[in-house]
Amino acid sequence: MADCRKRKIEVVGGGDESKGREETHTFRKVIGNEPGDDNGSASESLLSGFKTIAVLRDSAREKNIFIHGKIDDQEAVVILEKTPIREESLPEIFKDSRLKLEMKNDIYSTYQLQPPPHLNEIKTTVVCPATEKHVKKYLRQETFLLEESGEDYLSITLPFIQSQSFSVQWVYNILEKKAEADRIVHEDPDPKVGFVLLPDFKWDQKQLDDLYLIAIVHRRDIKSLRDLTSEHIPLLSNIRKGGQEVIQKRYSVPATKLRVYLHYQPSYYHLHVHFTSLSYDAPGCGVERAHLLSDVIQNLEADPKYYRSRCLSFLVRADDGLLRKFKDAGRV
Amino acid sequence: MADCRKRKIEVVGGGDESKGREETHTFRKVIGNEPGDDNGSASESLLSGFKTIAVLRDSAREKNIFIHGKIDDQEAVVILEKTPIREESLPEIFKDSRLKLEMKNDIYSTYQLQPPPHLNEIKTTVVCPATEKHVKKYLRQETFLLEESGEDYLSITLPFIQSQSFSVQWVYNILEKKAEADRIVHEDPDPKVGFVLLPDFKWDQKQLDDLYLIAIVHRRDIKSLRDLTSEHIPLLSNIRKGGQEVIQKRYSVPATKLRVYLHYQPSYYHLHVHFTSLSYDAPGCGVERAHLLSDVIQNLEADPKYYRSRCLSFLVRADDGLLRKFKDAGRV
Repeated sequence: MADCRKRKIEVVGGGDESKGREETHTFRKVIGNEPGDDNGSASESLLSGFKTIAVLRDSAREKNIFIHGKIDDQEAVVILEKTPIREESLPEIFKDSRLKLEMKNDIYSTYQLQPPPHLNEIKTTVVCPATEKHVKKYLRQETFLLEESGEDYLSITLPFIQSQSFSVQWVYNILEKKAEADRIVHEDPDPKVGFVLLPDFKWDQKQLDDLYLIAIVHRRDIKSLRDLTSEHIPLLSNIRKGGQEVIQKRYSVPATKLRVYLHYQPSYYHLHVHFTSLSYDAPGCGVERAHLLSDVIQNLEADPKYYRSRCLSFLVRADDGLLRKFKDAGRV
Repeated sequence: MADCRKRKIEVVGGGDESKGREETHTFRKVIGNEPGDDNGSASESLLSGFKTIAVLRDSAREKNIFIHGKIDDQEAVVILEKTPIREESLPEIFKDSRLKLEMKNDIYSTYQLQPPPHLNEIKTTVVCPATEKHVKKYLRQETFLLEESGEDYLSITLPFIQSQSFSVQWVYNILEKKAEADRIVHEDPDPKVGFVLLPDFKWDQKQLDDLYLIAIVHRRDIKSLRDLTSEHIPLLSNIRKGGQEVIQKRYSVPATKLRVYLHYQPSYYHLHVHFTSLSYDAPGCGVERAHLLSDVIQNLEADPKYYRSRCLSFLVRADDGLLRKFKDAGRV
C-alpha cells in the first residue's frame, strides 16, 4: 500500500497551507517525482484501501464530492470531480460507448452513456496526511432558510449583531482613503447620498465576464436593508444611476447587462450595493439572499417602512450563532 | 443504423413543442417501448454514426454539452451531462478504478481516476429529428435584464404572449392524468386552491442534493405572477403548506431546507411553483428570475394589486421576440 509520507520531493516555494491554496486546491508541479515515472503501481493501489469517514460536501450541479477518510492509518481528504466534456473527445465517445435506453417519446429519448474509462476521467486530488484544519476547511456547513419578521429583527437579530462587535474599520479606511484608494473607480463625496465604487476582490479585472464592483455609502448610520426607509430613496437612486453610468463609461457594460443588488443578511453591516455582470453566476445572487436595488427603491416608494415591517428570508449556516438565537426564541 | 423515424410509440397528448418542456429538455415516459425492451442493439448503434455540426453550448462548471448534429440524414440535438458522484458508489469506484498520477507535492497529489463505465455514466438526451426551433432553443444566447412596468406588461408583453400561442396542452395532460400520472407525488383536487406536485425532470431522484419538484395549479386562468391578486392568497398558501408538508413527509426535507419560488417570466404560462433543495444551486433561482412564494404572499397581503402595478425585472435572450418588442416600443 502506498505510504503517502514516504515520497521524497523538492517543494518549490511554500505556503501550501494558505487559505487561497486550500480553497482552490491547486498544486505545484512536483520536482523529481514526475508523472510518467514508474508510479503506476503506487498510484493504482493508493485509493483501493481508502476508507470513507464522512462526505464533507458534494455538488450535484458541479459533479464533485469532498471525502474525509483514511489511507492506511493516515487521515486523508479526497476530492473527486467529473471532468468537462470536450468537443474533441466526442467522435471517440460516440463510437466506443455503450448506450442504455431509459425512455423514448416521439422525437425525444434519454439514455445512460457508458464511455471507455480513458475518455471519461474523474479529476482526483488527495490530501494526505490531512489535518483537522483541512477537514474543517472543506466541510460544507449546512445552511437553513430563516424567516425573520420585523419583530424578530428588533428582538433577536439586532441585539445579536450588536453583541458581535463586527468591526467595519476596514470600510472606514476605504472611505477615508487610508486604504485601497488606488482601487476606487468612482466617488461621489456627498455625505448624505454619496458613495465610493471599487472592484470587489473576487474580480481579477482580467475579463468582463465576471465583472464585480461594490458601492459603499459614505454615511455610517445604515447597517442593512432593515434600516432603509423612504428617506434613503435619493441615496439609493444616486448609487443606481451613478454606478450604472460609471460602469457603462469605464467598462462599456450597459445597465441591461448588470445585476445590481443588496444582500440580506449582508457580509458586513455598513450599507453597500453589488454590481455584477449578468453573465456571471455570482455567489450570493440567489433569491434567498439578493434584493434588486430597483425593487428596493420601488418598495420604499410604495411603503416608506417596507423593510421595517415585513418578513425577510435569509440563509444561516449551521454554526452561526444567530441560528442558535432563533432556536432559543422558538422561531425555528 | 438506428433510424429515429421508425420507432413506433404511442404518444400521449401533444405539445412537445411547448416552451417549458423544451427549455427543461424533459420527456415523457414511452408507452409500448419500455426501457429494458430489447432496444439494446438499437440504442448501441444510435450515436455511433453521429456527426457533429456544431456545439450549441457547454458548461465546464456543470460538465455538460449541447451538440447539433446528424444521425443518419436526420438533424439531431444531443445533450450530454456527467452524472453527480454518489457516496454509495465510492467503495466500488475506489476499488475498481485505474488511477494515473499527475503530480505530487508534499501532502498534496493529483490524479486522473478512470472508473469502470457502469460506475461513471453520462446522462444523454437525444432530440431527433430536431427542428431549427430546437437548435435555436439550445444555442447559448446573450441575455439582457429588462424592466417591465405594469403598463409595459399590458401593452407589450401580454399581446406578445397571446400572439405566440404557447401550447400548455402537456400541462393539461398532467392535470387530467392523461400523462405522467405515475410521477405525481401529491394532489389536492380542489378546483380553486388545488394543485399537483411532481418531480421536475431535471431531478433524477437518485439523491436529495438536487431535489426539485413542481406544483402545478389546477385552475387554468392564471398565466403568471402578473395575474396574481389577493384573491389567490388561499391558493398560494395551500401550495406552500401542502408542498412543504409532503416533501417533509416523503423525503424528510424540512421547510428550512427548501427554496420555494415562482419564475418571472415563467417557462410556460400556467401558474406553477418550484420547490428546490437549498443545497442545490438550481438554474433559475437567481434574483433576476425567482420570486420567493413567501414574499409573493406577503406582498399580496399588503397590496392586493402588487403584481399588477409594479415594475418587474426579468431576463430576455438576444433572440427573444419580446426583446424586439421592447426595443420597438423604445423601452430598451
